[in-house]
Amino acid sequence: MSTVHVVGAAGFSGAQLAALVDAHPYFSLGQVTARADAGRRLVDIAPEYRVDAVLQPLDLDAVGLGDFAAVCYPHADAAATVSELVDRGARVVDVSSDHRLRDAALYPEWYGFTHPRPDLLAEAVYGLPEINRDAIAGARVVANPGCYPTSILLPLLPLLTAGLLAAAAPVIADSKSGVSGAGKAPNERTHFGSVHENFLAYGIGRHRHAPEIAQELGREVVFTPHLLPVFRGILSTIYVQPATGVDADGLRACLRDRYDAEPFVQVMEAGTPELRDVRGTNLCRIAVDASGPLCVITSAIDNLVKGAAGQALQNMNLMLGLEETEGLL
Amino acid sequence: MSTVHVVGAAGFSGAQLAALVDAHPYFSLGQVTARADAGRRLVDIAPEYRVDAVLQPLDLDAVGLGDFAAVCYPHADAAATVSELVDRGARVVDVSSDHRLRDAALYPEWYGFTHPRPDLLAEAVYGLPEINRDAIAGARVVANPGCYPTSILLPLLPLLTAGLLAAAAPVIADSKSGVSGAGKAPNERTHFGSVHENFLAYGIGRHRHAPEIAQELGREVVFTPHLLPVFRGILSTIYVQPATGVDADGLRACLRDRYDAEPFVQVMEAGTPELRDVRGTNLCRIAVDASGPLCVITSAIDNLVKGAAGQALQNMNLMLGLEETEGLL
Amino acid sequence: MSTVHVVGAAGFSGAQLAALVDAHPYFSLGQVTARADAGRRLVDIAPEYRVDAVLQPLDLDAVGLGDFAAVCYPHADAAATVSELVDRGARVVDVSSDHRLRDAALYPEWYGFTHPRPDLLAEAVYGLPEINRDAIAGARVVANPGCYPTSILLPLLPLLTAGLLAAAAPVIADSKSGVSGAGKAPNERTHFGSVHENFLAYGIGRHRHAPEIAQELGREVVFTPHLLPVFRGILSTIYVQPATGVDADGLRACLRDRYDAEPFVQVMEAGTPELRDVRGTNLCRIAVDASGPLCVITSAIDNLVKGAAGQALQNMNLMLGLEETEGLL
Amino acid sequence: MSTVHVVGAAGFSGAQLAALVDAHPYFSLGQVTARADAGRRLVDIAPEYRVDAVLQPLDLDAVGLGDFAAVCYPHADAAATVSELVDRGARVVDVSSDHRLRDAALYPEWYGFTHPRPDLLAEAVYGLPEINRDAIAGARVVANPGCYPTSILLPLLPLLTAGLLAAAAPVIADSKSGVSGAGKAPNERTHFGSVHENFLAYGIGRHRHAPEIAQELGREVVFTPHLLPVFRGILSTIYVQPATGVDADGLRACLRDRYDAEPFVQVMEAGTPELRDVRGTNLCRIAVDASGPLCVITSAIDNLVKGAAGQALQNMNLMLGLEETEGLL
Repeated sequence: MSTVHVVGAAGFSGAQLAALVDAHPYFSLGQVTARADAGRRLVDIAPEYRVDAVLQPLDLDAVGLGDFAAVCYPHADAAATVSELVDRGARVVDVSSDHRLRDAALYPEWYGFTHPRPDLLAEAVYGLPEINRDAIAGARVVANPGCYPTSILLPLLPLLTAGLLAAAAPVIADSKSGVSGAGKAPNERTHFGSVHENFLAYGIGRHRHAPEIAQELGREVVFTPHLLPVFRGILSTIYVQPATGVDADGLRACLRDRYDAEPFVQVMEAGTPELRDVRGTNLCRIAVDASGPLCVITSAIDNLVKGAAGQALQNMNLMLGLEETEGLL
Repeated sequence: MSTVHVVGAAGFSGAQLAALVDAHPYFSLGQVTARADAGRRLVDIAPEYRVDAVLQPLDLDAVGLGDFAAVCYPHADAAATVSELVDRGARVVDVSSDHRLRDAALYPEWYGFTHPRPDLLAEAVYGLPEINRDAIAGARVVANPGCYPTSILLPLLPLLTAGLLAAAAPVIADSKSGVSGAGKAPNERTHFGSVHENFLAYGIGRHRHAPEIAQELGREVVFTPHLLPVFRGILSTIYVQPATGVDADGLRACLRDRYDAEPFVQVMEAGTPELRDVRGTNLCRIAVDASGPLCVITSAIDNLVKGAAGQALQNMNLMLGLEETEGLL
Repeated sequence: MSTVHVVGAAGFSGAQLAALVDAHPYFSLGQVTARADAGRRLVDIAPEYRVDAVLQPLDLDAVGLGDFAAVCYPHADAAATVSELVDRGARVVDVSSDHRLRDAALYPEWYGFTHPRPDLLAEAVYGLPEINRDAIAGARVVANPGCYPTSILLPLLPLLTAGLLAAAAPVIADSKSGVSGAGKAPNERTHFGSVHENFLAYGIGRHRHAPEIAQELGREVVFTPHLLPVFRGILSTIYVQPATGVDADGLRACLRDRYDAEPFVQVMEAGTPELRDVRGTNLCRIAVDASGPLCVITSAIDNLVKGAAGQALQNMNLMLGLEETEGLL
Repeated sequence: MSTVHVVGAAGFSGAQLAALVDAHPYFSLGQVTARADAGRRLVDIAPEYRVDAVLQPLDLDAVGLGDFAAVCYPHADAAATVSELVDRGARVVDVSSDHRLRDAALYPEWYGFTHPRPDLLAEAVYGLPEINRDAIAGARVVANPGCYPTSILLPLLPLLTAGLLAAAAPVIADSKSGVSGAGKAPNERTHFGSVHENFLAYGIGRHRHAPEIAQELGREVVFTPHLLPVFRGILSTIYVQPATGVDADGLRACLRDRYDAEPFVQVMEAGTPELRDVRGTNLCRIAVDASGPLCVITSAIDNLVKGAAGQALQNMNLMLGLEETEGLL
């Protein structure tokens, strides 16, 4: 059994990850940490997981060489902690956004802090297993992708690589996320009364996941996030202009071929993905349809699993040389 | 008091309209009809409105010259009934889709039936008051716009008229609707268990509102509807390429200028519309934002009010020469 | 037009009351106040009401003799403010719990503070109009009833008065409330993720509404509140042992007779009340059924209307000598 | 691997059971049957389970001696099918209500049909494993308990057995269930629009689970079911009068002692159970609190797991001599 420290387990992603690690056949829970919530039982914070652990402050001295750590802190805090964990010899999956952008100059602009370890930024591997499998396996620091980017990159990357999209036309990602994506901090925005029976777009043209998507695609995307009155799940509706001579069938065939052997990516022959198809799973379900001059790609994930904790575990499976599917649905 | 017959009051739009007419200062409820639900009390079907009426089969002989009638039947059934009502001398608002498309040839293709009265199709006025006010005032038959088209046309028409959108770039409308838009018939799709905690796209590239939007805009739109786990409301997120030299501020200024005096259209200076801003009202709230090379227009309505019954009443107010806002929030 | 100051309008009850006053034919909005939220527009806090007002700190010097004021502050804060308002000559409806208990000694025990004005406690009239109509009309301070007590007292008081309940058997009120009853403060409990798809009992045997109910009934009630995943509404399921020779029909007949002329209390002949029947209204809907040796009374209100703001307005209508139904559904 | 035929897998309980069997280490899925839905893929009907099976009509000739079968048909249909399955030598868990009442005369009264096999009624074991473990292990026909009764009997039976409840006072069970308890048939009642933001009591004094509860308790219970706007879960709030000299601590101690070694029953030391604590699990969580002269027991289960499919699997584990917890959370 390898030890996994879940750093920041009081939040939604951290608690989900603690649950996945707790049930994993080859990983065992090490430290399960929190700051403000230290001393509380995880089962009181996230009763749905029934994980028997008391949250503790992170004890860096108890981190062993070769231990795994997943850092689920908010940005800026995560970068400092990752730095310390790596210095103790841990292999780290940063579930926060603090190692996703390779260009350190983007952190002050988009996240409002100066990155403390540009060397780790340069070293970190972007943790999308279906794309970067080999690099992840040997990585010391894995930058776990954002939830929205995961739902957008998985369908788009193979199409761009294959040259199936018109170069000049904008790619548009209209994404809708459940409330858990907004994090656990209670505020006016996450109060039941503000979410229930409501729906809205936010952060148009200025969401922090936009530069991450652009970096990985090598291309700008017009990205609009929305807040759904559900707890879990992201559905992205993506509009692309196929290259000359290419149609929806061609795009779908490319994706089916590319992901045929992937356990967690399902390209549908017919129908469109629904949030309930993927809830609680590490799956990304994708459909491609024609609509006038464009093609419409719909892509669904559970933002807390494939969009966060599940993908982190998938990455740790790779890093330890396990079957990528161990401990995941 | 003028009489309004609500034909098909057991459905969501019809019940909402019966409630609005019942509370109106200058209209009074005439026949409140149903077919399968005849004999039931409206308050048992739609308790939220507290309208004291027993549903009856439509009695055409009791329709008086100059009476108003709103037809809320499903398509095909509505066309036949509108025809009979007009022949009795009623002034009709067809809340169904049966008089929205001017080209009779589109009905077999999109709706699966041959239109019985192409003459009424030619005569019918498309009932978007902010655009067709004068024609509506004198109309005998008003085709009440679809819910999705209302949310899409109100922001787009002034921009197209003013030439502010690039001619070649596709316009994309990514729309999300509450379940009431799917109608009252209980089925696997509208069961609580299928809607709750779920979200999906449907009818991509083949929704019946697409030709209606295209007709009114004089231009194709890439239109994708989605089903939200809420009861009421539509939010459309619309992606447009502004004409050269035009930006989001320019589009917003055009819309603010165009709708400045309109009681039911609010173009926001900042922020984006939410469903809760418009629920239960006849409002359409619109915002314009920049996002990379495109502009993003968000537009929210209550699909049962501005998208159906409220707009029908707004049209009847115009037809009777009343203040357009009478009886509407 | 009489002026109504809404003191504490940023909360759920206060915002609802501001909306009702704003639309009232004979009352006009005076000060619309807040403390932490001063400076914000009410429409940004409670967009569903579309009330055009900027929240301001309470200015006691601008309160006129004979003005009405409704105090929607949390307990303890409310008592101090009511005291000041009364001293300025205002007529006050205290929407908080600070004047509901006649025995000042109960405040330290149940609410954790010493009441500053036992004289006002003694003077205050319990504002259940269907029971205390005459006293309310002439009152200077009205203690607006709690939401749970309103749903429980309206059905029980006539039955106790008429001697139709067995004296020895316990009365049980199993009540279920929407989240708005928990107030607006965002916390772990009111976060969407904690409410959605969840349900629980809380405060068993120690809820602050228990002594209020006992005071008004002159009898203890076993009271269990629960938290529903809805925004508005309370349904109380009440178990009573009828007196010898009395059955459910007898209880129902008593209530129908007692409330026959009441505009806001509906005793159903058949069926049971649902939250949607009363949402957004000042109604209390009541049913009585037999179940083995007991009778089961179900009672539904909108906790923000009949359970708070609507009842406050009903009381102000009475205090000003208006029709009790003015401005209320 | 033992074969389990899931008869009636298109409904909520049947689909849940198919998923549990599919993931079980020692059971494998045999026939997965449906009638109206025969020919459809289970994954299209219940996508959340991702079970790869096409629904087929039941083929009795393919049922082997010693196979297990779980019958999830509606009442009356189930009885006929159980009879045929038993005659083929299968061991049957009847998830319907058709073998729960030992007195055949109750079926015409409560269920409207004459039971075809009173001999099987006499033979059937009531499948509450925590109470009837030994009899279940050797049974040919197990009557799987109703969802409401499970939540009510587990806390009450030990208290009655121990003589801790006053004999004369009525026991009251105020129960609240998610919509899945109403079954899959789409109708006006299960339409999203009727459930969402709504809550109501139904079947007061005449619900079919009342005689089942009475039979097992040997005592009448005043039982009131309610419909919650959630998909899964039951919370029962139970009011009991303790015997003289007994208090809430005594009741709790009895239950903690009785269920100490039970893997699926958790008696809480503090706090009350929430639906989210038990969702997706086979757990029953119970709390006991004092409230005036009574004690209040709150009991939560997932109606589709411990209240149906999970308990059925728990019974089959027992029947096959496996660990009772195999394949269950």
